[in-house]
Amino acid sequence: PHAPRNAAHFHRAFLSSASNATLAAYLRALTLRPHLAGTQPSLDAAHLVRAHFLSLGLETRVARFAPLLSYPVRASLAAHFPNGTSVDLPLTEPRLAPDAVVPYHAYSPSGSAVRALAVFANYGREEDYAALSAIGVEVAGCVAVVRRGALSRGDVVRAAESKGVLAVLMYTEGRTAWSRRGVERGTVMRGVGDPLSPGWAGVEGGEALGLEDEEVSARFPKIPSMPVSAECAEMILASLEGGRAPPEWTETLGFKVRGVGPGPTALNFSYQGEKKVVNIHNVFAVIRGLEEPDRYILLGNHRDAWTYGAVDPNSGTAALLDIARRYALMMHMGWNPRRSIILCSWDAEEFGMIGSTEWVEQNLMTLGSKAVAYLNVDCAVQGPGFFARATPQLDELLIEITKKVKDPDNKEATVYEMWAKADGGDNIQRLSGIDSDYAPFLQYAGIPSVDIYYGKDFPVYHTAYDTYDWMANHGDPLFQRHVAAAGVWGLLALRLADDLILPFNYLSYANQLQGYVDIVINLLEGNISVHPLTLSIQALVSVAKEVELEAEKLSVERMTGELGVLRRRALNDRLMLAERGFLDADGLPYGRWFKHLVYGPSDYRSKISFFPGVAEAIWRSAGMRGGEGRAPIQHEIWRVARAIQRVADVLGGRTL
Amino acid sequence: PHAPRNAAHFHRAFLSSASNATLAAYLRALTLRPHLAGTQPSLDAAHLVRAHFLSLGLETRVARFAPLLSYPVRASLAAHFPNGTSVDLPLTEPRLAPDAVVPYHAYSPSGSAVRALAVFANYGREEDYAALSAIGVEVAGCVAVVRRGALSRGDVVRAAESKGVLAVLMYTEGRTAWSRRGVERGTVMRGVGDPLSPGWAGVEGGEALGLEDEEVSARFPKIPSMPVSAECAEMILASLEGGRAPPEWTETLGFKVRGVGPGPTALNFSYQGEKKVVNIHNVFAVIRGLEEPDRYILLGNHRDAWTYGAVDPNSGTAALLDIARRYALMMHMGWNPRRSIILCSWDAEEFGMIGSTEWVEQNLMTLGSKAVAYLNVDCAVQGPGFFARATPQLDELLIEITKKVKDPDNKEATVYEMWAKADGGDNIQRLSGIDSDYAPFLQYAGIPSVDIYYGKDFPVYHTAYDTYDWMANHGDPLFQRHVAAAGVWGLLALRLADDLILPFNYLSYANQLQGYVDIVINLLEGNISVHPLTLSIQALVSVAKEVELEAEKLSVERMTGELGVLRRRALNDRLMLAERGFLDADGLPYGRWFKHLVYGPSDYRSKISFFPGVAEAIWRSAGMRGGEGRAPIQHEIWRVARAIQRVADVLGGRTL
Ligand SMILES: [Ca+2]
Ligand SMILES: [Ca+2]
Ligand SMILES: [Zn+2]
Ligand SMILES: [Zn+2]
Ligand SMILES: [Zn+2]
Ligand SMILES: [Zn+2]
Repeated sequence: PHAPRNAAHFHRAFLSSASNATLAAYLRALTLRPHLAGTQPSLDAAHLVRAHFLSLGLETRVARFAPLLSYPVRASLAAHFPNGTSVDLPLTEPRLAPDAVVPYHAYSPSGSAVRALAVFANYGREEDYAALSAIGVEVAGCVAVVRRGALSRGDVVRAAESKGVLAVLMYTEGRTAWSRRGVERGTVMRGVGDPLSPGWAGVEGGEALGLEDEEVSARFPKIPSMPVSAECAEMILASLEGGRAPPEWTETLGFKVRGVGPGPTALNFSYQGEKKVVNIHNVFAVIRGLEEPDRYILLGNHRDAWTYGAVDPNSGTAALLDIARRYALMMHMGWNPRRSIILCSWDAEEFGMIGSTEWVEQNLMTLGSKAVAYLNVDCAVQGPGFFARATPQLDELLIEITKKVKDPDNKEATVYEMWAKADGGDNIQRLSGIDSDYAPFLQYAGIPSVDIYYGKDFPVYHTAYDTYDWMANHGDPLFQRHVAAAGVWGLLALRLADDLILPFNYLSYANQLQGYVDIVINLLEGNISVHPLTLSIQALVSVAKEVELEAEKLSVERMTGELGVLRRRALNDRLMLAERGFLDADGLPYGRWFKHLVYGPSDYRSKISFFPGVAEAIWRSAGMRGGEGRAPIQHEIWRVARAIQRVADVLGGRTL
Repeated sequence: PHAPRNAAHFHRAFLSSASNATLAAYLRALTLRPHLAGTQPSLDAAHLVRAHFLSLGLETRVARFAPLLSYPVRASLAAHFPNGTSVDLPLTEPRLAPDAVVPYHAYSPSGSAVRALAVFANYGREEDYAALSAIGVEVAGCVAVVRRGALSRGDVVRAAESKGVLAVLMYTEGRTAWSRRGVERGTVMRGVGDPLSPGWAGVEGGEALGLEDEEVSARFPKIPSMPVSAECAEMILASLEGGRAPPEWTETLGFKVRGVGPGPTALNFSYQGEKKVVNIHNVFAVIRGLEEPDRYILLGNHRDAWTYGAVDPNSGTAALLDIARRYALMMHMGWNPRRSIILCSWDAEEFGMIGSTEWVEQNLMTLGSKAVAYLNVDCAVQGPGFFARATPQLDELLIEITKKVKDPDNKEATVYEMWAKADGGDNIQRLSGIDSDYAPFLQYAGIPSVDIYYGKDFPVYHTAYDTYDWMANHGDPLFQRHVAAAGVWGLLALRLADDLILPFNYLSYANQLQGYVDIVINLLEGNISVHPLTLSIQALVSVAKEVELEAEKLSVERMTGELGVLRRRALNDRLMLAERGFLDADGLPYGRWFKHLVYGPSDYRSKISFFPGVAEAIWRSAGMRGGEGRAPIQHEIWRVARAIQRVADVLGGRTL
């Protein structure tokens, strides 16, 4: 016989056990040395996290995988100016520590361009190349200089490749001294997870595809690329002549540019990288649930960093360690969660969500049948302002929670109050991208997910300047934003772990879906019908309302016998499994691995960031004659409609 | 608060409520008129079943679908003999009732052959065409006469098509008067389910592919075919000359054959059929479980027949109706199952498992999360002798149950005793085929399944002679085999519905899998490793043993509080979901729709009837040079190994 839970008491204890000094200390310890995935310091960081969990008396596990990663071997870049001078351009931050990896793009092929003319391609989008074409600028055979800000790195390279560009230099704009010298590392691989084991766990002794396998090589670009500093990019761009830079381009550039090229500046660029299989490690702490140990609430953060990782990701790691500390405190006070809580420290996220994806692929069935929600924090703090992305059934809970956590920058306010003020309306964003570890959980396994962070677009992103000092001086001097992030994160997990009935509200989901349909209607031509979507959303609304009533009834009713226990369990099962209905075994046009039909990737030229299959079909139809594109679009609409109906069926619970 | 279950008492009451006279009466009522799927009499049969359920006070539902079926319009066959005479050959049974459909092959294309020479191709297998080739017989441009007995009808036609044959006449051998005149109707469609809605429910107003869609047309043969009687076939075959019939062929033929052709007999054959979308109806009775209404035990039988359906399938329908009657009796005595029992009457099975498949496609997620087992009975009685096919975790239960049911033909014996005597050892067959309604449940949805029947290979199969009179005179004069079949079927369901812990034993599964590996090893060459399979089976054995102990502990322990209830529920969830681990989202080489990697279809030239992906890869490698075929075989082996590991992981229940 177990004591009544008294969850509210323990949850309050959780909030009051916050300590900004502790968080700061964790961050300092985590960021002393660079810790790139697959290197010894990365293993040391894994041990640090593991030791922390063990010291708290928590059940701790390490899961090892053996994916194909990518490292730089050597690179050089020289510019030859029309006046005959040439200069070796700097490819790293000044005085980069020897144990920090030089800037590079993971999975860029080796290659070179000799005396290739430089051309500026703005953000590297279709419309940018179209603009260059319109002013007679031929990019084929050139080295393109592109500024980041629109497409993913991989999409920038692929777009350039399709135009005949030989190599791409990418830079991130910046206005401060160090942000103009910082160089943004990153991955150019397409998709997520170990490229040698698509759909299964890449482990030593397990199956691995070959590098020459088409499915593997399709993940990597065919032309080499390199990140460069804003300063370096400016040196090149300021020297270009040729076509006149379009005004829409120059008005947002931070410096003067006369022409976009090609040339007369020519570049000698050479990059050699190596891809190799290395061990990576995910670290876990498990707090077994008392009544429902076979129900999982997962909190995840990646641990690997390009360099020191103070913001990205170890501000989140500090929060994870702190939550562990506070949960352990609660356990000492007599608390046990109803459902199991799993704290996850991922490896190799920076290479393409690899640690999380391999683990999800390995445990797909188990997670599918037991995981209630996945709560991701990558960069807990980048600066001021609370941001959250979530699957809509979690909206209501997010709002409730943020009303209970103090705002870090405004004494008398809650996180919610400042958050609501900032965006004035629809604050919760959606998880359409594949930019952090929620991707495998939501878009492959169909698990309701959340991603939260303070601040946006911090200037030292993926550079050697992402250090504890930067955080202490700029990101979060008082570490109160860390406190707030950890508070929201930890309390979210506690509510999901302890509430008798899972706090999901599917009416929010239905409303969001209807909003998506309203947008899609305007993109469709003539005889493509969204009626199936409308019908299925109606079904979902109807069922969601019934479930709200049922949930209310069951959460107050004092049904203690077997029947009551199993009735609540049955309802919770339906609430937990509903999101799985959005998965379709045939996956997305972008890639079969991605199964979620509402949130997921589509071609970078797509116009909408939801219903990715529909988005891709609409994009592809643009190039087709007559009504050829119509049938695929209609088919994708049917698929989404059936997915929504599945969600309604599972949520409603009545098969016959 | 509910009274203790006292299941054993009610289960005994079930067995003692058997009545052979009742079963006979049901069969007579069901078989008065032919009831082909999609016709009015078929709808009448649905109403009969529905009315029966309603009269018992059972919750009854009808699910309607709108698949593409196929019907004959006209056909003609004439033989031209070398002596100048010609004769119109009979294409139906003598004096076929006007409301019985003429013999035909569903989904055969329309077509004709004019003055095409007839050739005998034995069973129509690769080796038979090879034998013809070896004696210089050219089949291209001929009409092939083939006897049934090796391949499916569709595979016979496809094989003939690949050899250039123009049309196929298929006959079933028979030695009695009516079996020589009976004509075996059947489907030649490849795969299961409505061809216009692969992967979703074909309903009015829903999505449907077009007939010209490649995915649709690939389901149908390209040359026409027709079933003929043995008598008709003999008329043709006895007149052939040309190549001398191989001795292996003639020694098993029932009549004298001089030559195999081609000719000199020439045939004029013409068939016109139409494919059209029609409504079909599945009928259900639901007995809601008291404690776990969200757990389903399904009993299924198809109701549609080619003609009168006394054996196929309405001996099974009679049993289903009788089980309903007896369950209702038990409910009147105060019984309620723990889990829900759903009695399912399928439509359009004969066309390709259509009624069951559409329903499973529509409810895949719900069934995946709630269905404990699917118990199929197609022909309950074809003759003497008990037969059972099952997924191995149900072996032990099957044996227990058959020890409790009286044998119908031996007074002092149980079904088990006579069954064990008959085969002397490993009596339980496996569900590798796609010949009845278990196919979508097991091979698409991963639900543990059973199929039982009395007797084998009855001579009036799919002919107009499958009537009540045949059953009363030959199949089961005393209707005691019906009693036994209904007894085993109904008791299986009761145990699955009422046992506190699901009576699954995964050690049997592990042993069966090891047996498969032992067979496969002998088919593999050189450097293909089965080690991954061995490892994963070891893991399954280990977990299965632990689960046996855990199940024993939890079934006796008096844990009545919330913790106890949820612990049993958690174990039952693992037991229920384990089979799903054999599903792979990428499906089989034979067809992506088929997801189960242990049981499912493969090319008819495959050498093994399990691990269908491996089987297909081995077959395909036979035609490849060097080591080209090796990698696909190894990949399929990895896939099965990972599936077995998934099963072990789900069964074991520990993610970390
Ligand atoms: Ca993988
Ligand atoms: Ca279908
Ligand atoms: Zn990150
Ligand atoms: Zn990052
Ligand atoms: Zn049948
Ligand atoms: Zn049949």
